[in-house]
Amino acid sequence: MKKSPPSASLSELVGHNVRVFRASAKLSQEDLAELCGMKRTYVGAIERAEVDVRLTTLGKLAEGLKLEPYELLTDARSRLHLKR
Amino acid sequence: MKKSPPSASLSELVGHNVRVFRASAKLSQEDLAELCGMKRTYVGAIERAEVDVRLTTLGKLAEGLKLEPYELLTDARSRLHLKR
Repeated sequence: MKKSPPSASLSELVGHNVRVFRASAKLSQEDLAELCGMKRTYVGAIERAEVDVRLTTLGKLAEGLKLEPYELLTDARSRLHLKR
Repeated sequence: MKKSPPSASLSELVGHNVRVFRASAKLSQEDLAELCGMKRTYVGAIERAEVDVRLTTLGKLAEGLKLEPYELLTDARSRLHLKR
């Protein structure tokens, strides 16, 4: 078992958001990984909040998902609701 | 000389925002460091965009500055302008 990162809630928010925005963009974990230049398993770990990601990674994920980085730190569902 | 982190622009945005919000809260780097449980030199390095911070650190900085983490990834000046 991996230890949860200290700020589990923020990693959970980002992980949740990546999953929600990725699904909304109809991308697989593999698709997103390719867009971001990451491994699929790393995208999976981020979505499961197992990684305390750095800004660089947050930026890559946002770029792959065509979002602004701050959007990965706000409530994805309410934003999708507003947009669609 | 330290190498710039790969996502220099995001680190620069966060560094700039920490500096602006910290000054607006009339906190020294030492004050903020104490609030966040960090060293003063680390706060300085973050403000100079020398650090590619992790989510945990972003969360601590936001807590010390009484902000939501996403606010450190948006334009501090426009937010301060809206608030005051």
